Amino acid sequence: MSEGEDEITGWFARQSKLTAADFPIGIGDDMAQIQLGKDTSVLVTIDMLLDGVHFDLEKATVRQVGYKAMAVSLSDCAAMATVPIAAVVSVALPKGFGEKELKQLHTGITDAGDKYDCALVGGDITSWGDSKPLAISVAMLSRAAGNEPVKRSGAKVGDNICVTGSLGGAVRRKHLEFEPRVKEAIKIARMVTLNSMIDISDGLSSDLNRICRASRVGAVINSEKIPISDEAQKSENPPSSALNDGEDFELLFTLSQAECEELLQKWDGAIPITQIGEINDTKKMRIKMPDGVIKDLEVKGYDHLKGGCEL
Amino acid sequence: MSEGEDEITGWFARQSKLTAADFPIGIGDDMAQIQLGKDTSVLVTIDMLLDGVHFDLEKATVRQVGYKAMAVSLSDCAAMATVPIAAVVSVALPKGFGEKELKQLHTGITDAGDKYDCALVGGDITSWGDSKPLAISVAMLSRAAGNEPVKRSGAKVGDNICVTGSLGGAVRRKHLEFEPRVKEAIKIARMVTLNSMIDISDGLSSDLNRICRASRVGAVINSEKIPISDEAQKSENPPSSALNDGEDFELLFTLSQAECEELLQKWDGAIPITQIGEINDTKKMRIKMPDGVIKDLEVKGYDHLKGGCEL
Repeated sequence: MSEGEDEITGWFARQSKLTAADFPIGIGDDMAQIQLGKDTSVLVTIDMLLDGVHFDLEKATVRQVGYKAMAVSLSDCAAMATVPIAAVVSVALPKGFGEKELKQLHTGITDAGDKYDCALVGGDITSWGDSKPLAISVAMLSRAAGNEPVKRSGAKVGDNICVTGSLGGAVRRKHLEFEPRVKEAIKIARMVTLNSMIDISDGLSSDLNRICRASRVGAVINSEKIPISDEAQKSENPPSSALNDGEDFELLFTLSQAECEELLQKWDGAIPITQIGEINDTKKMRIKMPDGVIKDLEVKGYDHLKGGCEL
Repeated sequence: MSEGEDEITGWFARQSKLTAADFPIGIGDDMAQIQLGKDTSVLVTIDMLLDGVHFDLEKATVRQVGYKAMAVSLSDCAAMATVPIAAVVSVALPKGFGEKELKQLHTGITDAGDKYDCALVGGDITSWGDSKPLAISVAMLSRAAGNEPVKRSGAKVGDNICVTGSLGGAVRRKHLEFEPRVKEAIKIARMVTLNSMIDISDGLSSDLNRICRASRVGAVINSEKIPISDEAQKSENPPSSALNDGEDFELLFTLSQAECEELLQKWDGAIPITQIGEINDTKKMRIKMPDGVIKDLEVKGYDHLKGGCEL
């Protein structure tokens, strides 16, 4: 197809007639926000994970698939610094999947959910025919954590850009076992004012591009500051791996320089936070190489419509 | 597998540690209810529709698939007499599906949603490889319509059993074009007190069985009173078609005899309501045949784990 995931999402967003009063956050962020009463709103997200795309049942256990399906949605809650409440799960079972596999899936789902007080409240199970693969879709609800949910679109010129943890190589193992940064996101959002945030699902280059486009700003990343994971260090091109592999499910966020300094000084969490660049008014993404040369930063992360990375 | 859909759903429900204060309605009804504040709650449901199971792309248009995916969830909102608010949709696209098909799917989704003021607020799109079929999962939120949401578990001995519309043969055409009974459900629930309700998705015999099991009651149906659709009349065994075909997406509800009389007397909706039987304390489902003989009513509707009906 000619258009990628972000383009078609943009098209969907332009078709929608959501009012800001009823839907303060609409299509195109990690979650949508629905106003239910004067002081009560709820956020919602949905994701579908597919065998052969988001996991490979020849390498992953069924329990890991259940865990990942929940963790991906929990990571969306984290991306907005919101508190997970409940999830509903629908699954399409391949032939031969029975009670045993369903209970393993359930264990993975509740292992992930229980850790973040996110209840499984409903679901839908269907078996389909021969040679049809496992598909699992999770919809999750969350609520604001006191602060306003942090959107992608609030990055300001002059903001510092930060990430949690380390990046790259997650497709080897971490993508099945990652800890969604729910607690870190809420803790950070309570310590300082975040201007924008996203979780790194498709790769730093792709997800930073989403922040820049939504916020109508540009960015420059310092390649030497990117925290490269041990797994990525083993790859042929560690910086490229950290920039583009995706499935890190770390937080990528921007905040004023002063807030950033305060955060880095006070931060006592086990997961490191690294300042990796700045937001500017160029509307372009650039990267400062170790030799000081500044190059255009290409968006090479995973596009779920065009493909890109491999499991 | 040894267990069917209802058995495994029961197992999931028994594993859950939901508190009634936070989750007034948990696993096992058409929607779960989440208490968000003293006076605010939200209901949520999820369903996944699969090519070859819930639709057949050789017979259905992509627009119809989008419409049905939303209408199925809208019917869940109707089943509890709640007001749809918003939906999120995830889709797995077969190879060759592009912009054109996505926009057709979107048209179907919004055609169904717009009619019931149910906004599309987010989604997730993934393309998967060769020979992988279209899958679409819709999660929908709703709110109480003034009255308490109507559960499956409230049927009382002595209740009359009613259905909207007519039953059977929906797999031929209606299952792609049905009108979810959202407006009827809310109108009925405002006129009288409903003790239990469900939408007929898997067949009258299956869904009445769900009400009976959840409410720990029995039922007797008068076969001559079942409203048989024109499509079912064309079938080899019209009464069996009306009892077991499924995909009718009509409402099945129970209420006291006095409330039922009041409803039937005052009802001025375009969709007929028919009283077809009574709830009793036998814990068995029986059917009164035209010759006056009362037989056990077998549950022959569609089981999404065991299969049953064909599209």
